[in-house]
This record gives sequence, C-alpha cells and structure tokens, in this order.
Amino acid sequence: MARRKKVYEGKAKILYEGPEPGTLVQYFKDDSSSSVAVPSTLEGKGVLNNRLSEFFMSGLNQIGVPTHFIRRLNMREQLVRMAEIIPLEIVVRNFAAGPLSARLGIPEGTQLPRPIVEYYFKDEKLNLPLVAEEHIVAFGWANQQDLDDIVALALRVNDFLSGVMMGVGIRLADFRIEVGRIWEGDFMRLIVADEISPDSCRLWDMRQPERPDGTIPDPQPMGDVYTELARRLGVLPTNITHTMKPTLIN
Amino acid sequence: MARRKKVYEGKAKILYEGPEPGTLVQYFKDDSSSSVAVPSTLEGKGVLNNRLSEFFMSGLNQIGVPTHFIRRLNMREQLVRMAEIIPLEIVVRNFAAGPLSARLGIPEGTQLPRPIVEYYFKDEKLNLPLVAEEHIVAFGWANQQDLDDIVALALRVNDFLSGVMMGVGIRLADFRIEVGRIWEGDFMRLIVADEISPDSCRLWDMRQPERPDGTIPDPQPMGDVYTELARRLGVLPTNITHTMKPTLIN
Ligand SMILES: Nc1ncnc2c1ncn2[C@@H]1O[C@H](COP(=O)(O)OP(=O)(O)OP(=O)(O)O)[C@@H](O)[C@H]1O
Ligand SMILES: Nc1ncnc2c1ncn2[C@@H]1O[C@H](COP(=O)(O)OP(=O)(O)OP(=O)(O)O)[C@@H](O)[C@H]1O
Ligand SMILES: [Mg+2]
Ligand SMILES: [Mg+2]
Repeated sequence: MARRKKVYEGKAKILYEGPEPGTLVQYFKDDSSSSVAVPSTLEGKGVLNNRLSEFFMSGLNQIGVPTHFIRRLNMREQLVRMAEIIPLEIVVRNFAAGPLSARLGIPEGTQLPRPIVEYYFKDEKLNLPLVAEEHIVAFGWANQQDLDDIVALALRVNDFLSGVMMGVGIRLADFRIEVGRIWEGDFMRLIVADEISPDSCRLWDMRQPERPDGTIPDPQPMGDVYTELARRLGVLPTNITHTMKPTLIN
Repeated sequence: MARRKKVYEGKAKILYEGPEPGTLVQYFKDDSSSSVAVPSTLEGKGVLNNRLSEFFMSGLNQIGVPTHFIRRLNMREQLVRMAEIIPLEIVVRNFAAGPLSARLGIPEGTQLPRPIVEYYFKDEKLNLPLVAEEHIVAFGWANQQDLDDIVALALRVNDFLSGVMMGVGIRLADFRIEVGRIWEGDFMRLIVADEISPDSCRLWDMRQPERPDGTIPDPQPMGDVYTELARRLGVLPTNITHTMKPTLIN
C-alpha cells in the first residue's frame, strides 16, 4: 500500500489522510482510552469496534441521522468524511451511573426522569471537565443554534441506539458521541463523528440467568462486551470467536 | 373470572372494560384485519402479537415515548390506558412499497429521500382513504398542534423501531400506528395506542442466505414473521415453537 500521511494518533485510533480531499481513514487500534473501564489493550478489540462503529453509523445514515461514515475498507480501517470536530464529548444518559451517580448522589441503575444530555470539554489534560451551555457559547466552541442541533442529533441517536440494544437484550445506560462540522459550499452541517462502540457506550445485559430463587437480577455490565455485542448483532467476523484469541493480528 | 363488559370487537382484537376507570383489557385474537397480507386466521398469532406489542410499547415507554401499554395480563391479554382514538391510521414509510409504489409509480424497495408520514382516515367502509393535513384540520379530527405532535411521536417511534429491527437483521420498510388522547386533569396528552406487531409493520429480512453465485439477495418479506420476530427478540413463549402448532388454544 502507498505510504500515507498520519494526521493524528490518539489512544484508540489513528487518522490517516484519505484517498480524496475531505476524507480520512480511521484505523482502530486495540488500545482503549483511559476513560473506559476495560484493560487498556485487548487483542482484536479494534477489529470489532471497526465493525460495530460501521454497524451503528451506517444504521444512523440509513435513518437519516448524518454521520461521518462512508465505508469500511478492511478489518481495522474505515473511510470517513473529515469534519471539524467540536471540542466536546456529548453524553446522553438514560440511567444513572459513573460520574452522574458520584457527583449527584443518585444510585447507579436509577432510571432518569428523561434522557439527560451533558457536555464535557474535550481536553485530556484537564480531565474532560463537565461544562454547561453557558461556557460553550461564551468560549465560542459552538453557538446556541449548534447546541440545539446537537441536542436533536444526540436524542435521535439515543432513540435509535436504545432500540438496537433493546432488540438484542441490552440496556443502553449512557453513551457519548463527538459531533463535527462539514461544509457543502457555504452551507454548514453537523454530523456524528468519531466512533460508536462499547468504548463509548455503557451497556448492561438484560439477559441475566435466573437466580436459584427464581428472581431475575438487575441488568449487569456485559462480560466480553465487544465479542458479545458483535455476536448478537450478527457482525462478528467469521474468523473471530473471542477477542482474546491470538489469531487477531491485523 | 368475573364477567366483563365487551366494549368493542374488531377483526384482530377485543376490548373489555378494565379493572379500573380509564383502563381497558386488550384481547389479541388469531384473526387479522383484511389489510394484512397473511392468512386471515393463524393459530397462535394473537399470543405472539400480545408479546410483541408488549415488547415494543414497553420499550417506547422506557425511552419516554408515551403509549397506552400498562402491563401484560396473560397469554392473550394486556392492560392498557383507555384513550380517545384519533380516527387516523398514521403510516411512516422508509422504503417504497404497497400503496405508495402503486399510486406514485415508485418501484418496491426504493429507499425514500426521508421518512414519509401519511394519514389514512380510519373508516373501513371507505377503505381507509388517504387524507392530507388539510382534510384532517378542516373536518376537526385533529388540529395543527395535534398533527405536529403526532409527526414528532411517529418519527420517534420510527427511529426506535428501525433500531430494534436493524439490531435483529430486519429492515423496517413501513409501519402504522394509532394515536389517542388521554386527559390528566385539564391537560391533554397524545399517546401511541392500538398495537405494534407484524400486523402493523412491513418487515423485510436482511439475513438472506447467499446465492450460489455469492451475491446477497435484496431484503425479502419474512416467512412466518410472527414466530421469527418473537424468536429473534427473545420473547417467544417457551411452550411455542411455531405459530402453526395445535397446542396454542389460549
Ligand atoms: N470525522 C472526523 N474528522 C476529523 N476528526 C475526527 C473524525 N472522527 C474522529 N475524529 C477525531 O479523531 C480522534 C480519534 O482519536 P482517539 O479516539 O484515539 O483519541 P482521542 O479522542 O484524542 O483520545 P481518547 O483516547 O481519549 O479517545 C479524536 O480526536 C476525534 O475527535
Ligand atoms: N388504548 C385504547 N383506547 C381505546 N381504543 C383503543 C385503544 N387501543 C386501540 N383501540 C381501538 O381498539 C380497536 C382494536 O380493534 P381491531 O384492531 O381488532 O379492529 P379495527 O382497528 O377496528 O379494525 P382492523 O381489524 O382493521 O384493525 C381499534 O378500533 C382501535 O382504535
Ligand atoms: Mg476518542
Ligand atoms: Mg386495528
């Protein structure tokens, strides 16, 4: 393959210049960002996240929620539209967990009165601080119209993704997306970018085995979530049966 | 069981007075309305539609789309909130099929530029004629605010249901819902009523076996759609393996 220019390397992905202007190649590594509660490297994880992000992003494109996804190129790479990323992690929460539970004292697993959309300033050095719309508009990261559009996008992603997950016996407790701007002539549009995968979703398994006393336990974090989710959605590459298998080098 | 008052008997369902004011019991029969392209009676169909409508309606309740569903009572019955039904079948189409293809000459299977919401006047004797917002407002079946709310509801149902179906390898070509009014004091709300089941959805199977020449055929109408959908969603009652089995009397 021709030598490609590396545009950015993060913890979980590498971005290369794409074959055409306005495109990028997204390479999925086996490493995870430190904000994910899994081992920092998991062999084959990138292969599965490439498939899973393809599945969710192309599904969103199908239903008319615009995303950066163009097509998958190979086991670890997909072609995406280059976007000007808004420096926010946009989080949608359906059930209390993690930082929300900790900061507001709401027990993990509590259903929220309605989906709550939060913004975190995308700066690793500052540890992704929570911000309000007030900060975002004042510092010019996005204007009020952008924010209204971002909320509408995020809630549509939530409806769709909640449906996908419910269909395969999983509760979508929360997830995060990144949103970017693209231009078509003078016209600017916001699209869903980055990735949608177990690294960006908190998933609880509703298919818990019955307890000896006949009761059904509450939904639990999923074991081997990458493989299990890919299997349930029917996107497990046929030569992969388990993320830990040593056959998975690229 | 105590004698209950029958409120209404349609082709597919019977409504009984519920145990409390403002509730109804919905009994699912094995017969289908004539608008569905399946045999008019299919043993066990009502049992599966009861489960499936429970699955979709409770999922919608979960994500904050209000529906009439309260809880399932038994194999063929569920408890619902009584609503004042708006006399419209509200249809959302993602892919051209059926009457849209016929009337506008768009080949079956064509993806529509965006989801199209249609209204049909719920009058069997008139054969459910297509109507425009203009007719609906002029004849007072609903006002413009109701219609805006109905479109928003219908599109949320579409995002969620498209997600559920995609998660289990099915394309949601189109579906119809009914919407009703409920009052909480002076405050009126619109909720999704009636049923969501294969009788109200056009479903195409994306898990087609590869052809001998290696190509994958277009999504096809699903065979034994009630059983297959219930199986994929994990809501098949354990004593039912196939809708045709003779063990299914109530
Ligand atoms: N369509 C796109 N156009 C431009 N940049 C994108 C696009 N999609 C994702 N990105 C950027 O690519 C990078 C992906 O890298 P990666 O996720 O590995 O690292 P990171 O987000 O910087 O840090 P972390 O490891 O915490 O996730 C992110 O900075 C993301 O904003
Ligand atoms: N929550 C509810 N409150 C009041 N009426 C309801 C509610 N949900 C559904 N209905 C009504 O119950 C009836 C269900 O009957 P059914 O579907 O069998 O017959 P139908 O809709 O009259 O005709 P078809 O056989 O063509 O469907 C419908 O008239 C529907 O409008
Ligand atoms: Mg990242
Ligand atoms: Mg009906």
